[in-house]
Amino acid sequence: MTAFETSSGEGVARPPVAALPFYDCIRDDLTQVEEKLRDLSKVGYEHLASMLGHIFYSHGKRMRPAVTILASRIHSGPADTPILMGTAVELLHIATLIHDDTVDNADVRRGRATISSLWGREVAVLVGDYVFAKSATFVCDTQNIRVIRRFSETIMELSTGELKERFAANDWQTTREQYEERIFNKTASLFTTSAESGAVLSGAPEELVQALKSYGTDIGMAFQVVDDILDFEGDSGEVGKPVGNDLKQGTLTLPAILLVQRYPENNPVVALCQGIEPEENRQRALEMVRNSGVIDESYQAAQAFCRRAAEAIAPLPNSPYKRALLDVADYVLERQG
Amino acid sequence: MTAFETSSGEGVARPPVAALPFYDCIRDDLTQVEEKLRDLSKVGYEHLASMLGHIFYSHGKRMRPAVTILASRIHSGPADTPILMGTAVELLHIATLIHDDTVDNADVRRGRATISSLWGREVAVLVGDYVFAKSATFVCDTQNIRVIRRFSETIMELSTGELKERFAANDWQTTREQYEERIFNKTASLFTTSAESGAVLSGAPEELVQALKSYGTDIGMAFQVVDDILDFEGDSGEVGKPVGNDLKQGTLTLPAILLVQRYPENNPVVALCQGIEPEENRQRALEMVRNSGVIDESYQAAQAFCRRAAEAIAPLPNSPYKRALLDVADYVLERQG
Repeated sequence: MTAFETSSGEGVARPPVAALPFYDCIRDDLTQVEEKLRDLSKVGYEHLASMLGHIFYSHGKRMRPAVTILASRIHSGPADTPILMGTAVELLHIATLIHDDTVDNADVRRGRATISSLWGREVAVLVGDYVFAKSATFVCDTQNIRVIRRFSETIMELSTGELKERFAANDWQTTREQYEERIFNKTASLFTTSAESGAVLSGAPEELVQALKSYGTDIGMAFQVVDDILDFEGDSGEVGKPVGNDLKQGTLTLPAILLVQRYPENNPVVALCQGIEPEENRQRALEMVRNSGVIDESYQAAQAFCRRAAEAIAPLPNSPYKRALLDVADYVLERQG
Repeated sequence: MTAFETSSGEGVARPPVAALPFYDCIRDDLTQVEEKLRDLSKVGYEHLASMLGHIFYSHGKRMRPAVTILASRIHSGPADTPILMGTAVELLHIATLIHDDTVDNADVRRGRATISSLWGREVAVLVGDYVFAKSATFVCDTQNIRVIRRFSETIMELSTGELKERFAANDWQTTREQYEERIFNKTASLFTTSAESGAVLSGAPEELVQALKSYGTDIGMAFQVVDDILDFEGDSGEVGKPVGNDLKQGTLTLPAILLVQRYPENNPVVALCQGIEPEENRQRALEMVRNSGVIDESYQAAQAFCRRAAEAIAPLPNSPYKRALLDVADYVLERQG
């Protein structure tokens, strides 16, 4: 049976799961996550129902729930709480996207109109709050205080990361260390929590929890570095937002930081940050980044994070779940959108 | 010792607590809440620290923490978790104010510049998220799953209430029932949770929890009705926002709803909602509301809620804490800002 067929013969179509091959061993769990997400739009208040329907209509790759569920399978434990947790981390991710799109005034995300463009930024703030809160109810249902607390801390880290990005806008002296701190907050912290909470909920010993937590942090770091590279080289169809968007927002990511370090004189990124001929310097910066080897160097940084992620889980006994976690790390490097 | 003096002779000033007489029996607990709030601005990230300093500089009346702590004292129980919970409900209240001011584009709140006016609406969304998350960490520290879950549900109710208000803008056919449903979501739900969680954390029997929960709902309803009345008659100095602000936003509150029902013909509120001569009709509406007896009728509605609140806790044994809860209900009716 594929995920598109009915599960019980009663004619209820099960929602599809992203077709990534390494999801095979947890396909049923991910289908349950999809079902929980789909069911969220069944609320009594009509305006809210249509907005939630719009939000959950698009199926992301669900990488964070996949990490949670895979991490929970390394150690044998209860199968239900990781599904609740997987739903929660995806919802938290979606809530942050809604607020980010509102903050960035973005009209489109992955080819679909954003909530803020359709219903206004004011409504988007409130819908984002609703989805944040909904994510927390799923975590509560795990009944595990440790993961509940980690989850709230993660929301604080995410918003701190976004604030750091905003306050560091147009600061061409941003260091690589500051960049890494920021992307930890903004992205890796949720991957860390996804992996850690899966392990905690499975009842894994602390050593195993820590190994999976490290794995989560490092693939999260790699994920964001690749995201930042794609902003320079992806075509807007796949990434779903215009190329060069970060520079336009004044956000200096790894390729731009490396470019400033490598060519301190007459650098278009510096000029751009100083507000000098923005459009022209942005084009110059995009071309220079693409032709200077800083993209390669950034990929090497992402590879190093993925290597560390693989090393963190290397001591674990072999299993389809460990294999899938290693495949996730490879996929993070190879993805094109 | 007053709350302004030092607590230990070490020269550390304790933050002041609102000077409402019925807070006397829980002054030390409220001081601890103030200290926890003040300590929140001690974060490593400088920009965040200054924003949090701005937020916690102004001391509200802390009615929600007071309700939590008073409710917890009716039954003897641990003294520390209600203080954590009191801090959480106040933080949640503050987070919603930050997002509301952002959504409403308000420049001033109680005489102080809003976060969105000082740092921009984008930053205000993210700081609001941070404060939401911080509130959740305090709830987690109570280690009580029931109150943690209620807390997340409350955030959903709050955002649903704000969404309802926004989507019902300029709907002059809004009924009193719809109004009451909306203000339950928007305001009474957090008062309900404040009282309920205090009782739960004290280990009170379920009957007592339900009595205090009902009390919380009813004073929350009364609180919002009075708030809506003050928007028509308060002077802007005390309320801290311009009079007639709700009508300006297209929000129909009880006085306006009653006015439409009482004078269905040639009604300035209806005209205003239809966009006809807005400034003139708003002035006409304000005058008509003040001179038509609908303010009296609205006060009677608030009084009825407060009466129900008092009835809910009437069976409880007499104590300074029960007396203070009754005084809170009186204060809700009498307050001028």
